[in-house]
Amino acid sequence: MNKQELINQIKLKKSFLCIGLDTDIQKIPEHLLKFDDPVFEFNKQIIDSTKDLCVAYKLNTAFYESNGINGWKSLMKTIDYIPKNIFSIADAKRGDIGNTSKMYAKTFFETMDFDSITVNPYMGTDSVEPFLDFNNKWVILLALTSNKGSEDFQNFSNQSNIKLYQQVIEKSMNWSNDSRMMYVVGATKYDSLKEIRKIIPDHFLLIPGIGAQGGSLDDVVKNGMNKDCGLLINSSRSIIYAGNGVNFAENAREAALKIKSEMENYIS
Amino acid sequence: MNKQELINQIKLKKSFLCIGLDTDIQKIPEHLLKFDDPVFEFNKQIIDSTKDLCVAYKLNTAFYESNGINGWKSLMKTIDYIPKNIFSIADAKRGDIGNTSKMYAKTFFETMDFDSITVNPYMGTDSVEPFLDFNNKWVILLALTSNKGSEDFQNFSNQSNIKLYQQVIEKSMNWSNDSRMMYVVGATKYDSLKEIRKIIPDHFLLIPGIGAQGGSLDDVVKNGMNKDCGLLINSSRSIIYAGNGVNFAENAREAALKIKSEMENYIS
Repeated sequence: MNKQELINQIKLKKSFLCIGLDTDIQKIPEHLLKFDDPVFEFNKQIIDSTKDLCVAYKLNTAFYESNGINGWKSLMKTIDYIPKNIFSIADAKRGDIGNTSKMYAKTFFETMDFDSITVNPYMGTDSVEPFLDFNNKWVILLALTSNKGSEDFQNFSNQSNIKLYQQVIEKSMNWSNDSRMMYVVGATKYDSLKEIRKIIPDHFLLIPGIGAQGGSLDDVVKNGMNKDCGLLINSSRSIIYAGNGVNFAENAREAALKIKSEMENYIS
Repeated sequence: MNKQELINQIKLKKSFLCIGLDTDIQKIPEHLLKFDDPVFEFNKQIIDSTKDLCVAYKLNTAFYESNGINGWKSLMKTIDYIPKNIFSIADAKRGDIGNTSKMYAKTFFETMDFDSITVNPYMGTDSVEPFLDFNNKWVILLALTSNKGSEDFQNFSNQSNIKLYQQVIEKSMNWSNDSRMMYVVGATKYDSLKEIRKIIPDHFLLIPGIGAQGGSLDDVVKNGMNKDCGLLINSSRSIIYAGNGVNFAENAREAALKIKSEMENYIS
């Protein structure tokens, strides 16, 4: 999916919601455990009940890998099931030397057909470039994450008081453009969001941390929205685990609808 | 495997060689393609022919993931096949918010029985700690990597001229001790290796970059060896792809033996 198609979907649906399918087999409703692939069944029902409300699904690979081969089967079935007009994100946070990153890119862009992957910048240019060699696919680079530990190194400052996460953005801007790259910025980092928009006014930002992690939609929009919207706001646990019974998918829909309805106010 | 057991193996074998099983199905000898699982067959033969020469095997997860479910099968069979007295490394370079890192830790320490995993420090303390919650398992934290792009951010310096990779080491030293943590330092970074040894004299270092990437064993030993050896020197492509015919495993043995024989000189 290219940038214009994503913008069109946002305008059409009046939503910039991304739903995180961090599906933990320990947390899904018990009645699903009788299915051959309970995790896929859970995802399928969540997708069916929310696909008109969101513009992106983010699959956190850790939750699938932890189930071994069965987990990879669930992951692959889920990515195939996501409608093509919804932006898909492999939240894999990969990054390695060139020949290895090339293999990861192959995994998520060829073996599976994700639109994008989250990439860790620590190893620099040649660890990210192989992901940019695939047509019409996106790199979502970690800049300033939503967790407490983000302060440990991402705020590390140089002589000119430039922080590491700002340096990551400044440098990586030269690797590609806003049609191929997005950045992860935590929903709880309002001041930084404003500063980041000065450096990259046009890029999309993937914003995790709304909901379970405590970020506020209004503050994110005020500080981060641009003329194209430019935001994908992710919520995972507070949507997919909104209910835990036979009506879990309906409960998830209600939780997603609540955020989506708020979002409508910001999309003209 | 604990630290003393690893040191004992190094002394016993007079080797601190780690062999990287970066097994690419496109690069293995053609006659193996008739096997049900060509990648596992390749690894099995490499392990059989080199297990007396090395003290560690490092499995680069990218090469397995890129084959999808079959790749994960090969990975799981390989980790089960590695003898328990050889240190195993999941070279996965993972790292995410706490609940996600916990899932990755479960993947590599429970679903699979690796001794250790490489972890990316970018997201800070709470992204690494979940990996340290598993008894007798190790975190190998990226400090200064061997690729060109390592200069982009790892050398980013603060007001006191402390570089990011030094900050990563200094901070993370408080998260655990040298019985639970190692660091990745590229084989081509001799001067930095000497500096790093001043900060962490006792930790093991995983050193990639010997062979295909151009590092020299002698220079690494001179700058990085400590009283316990304290080095795991990895070579991947130059060993496992030393030959490409029916004798590939023998050729790999010859290539490994050449490095191992050099290593004997440094182990008293």
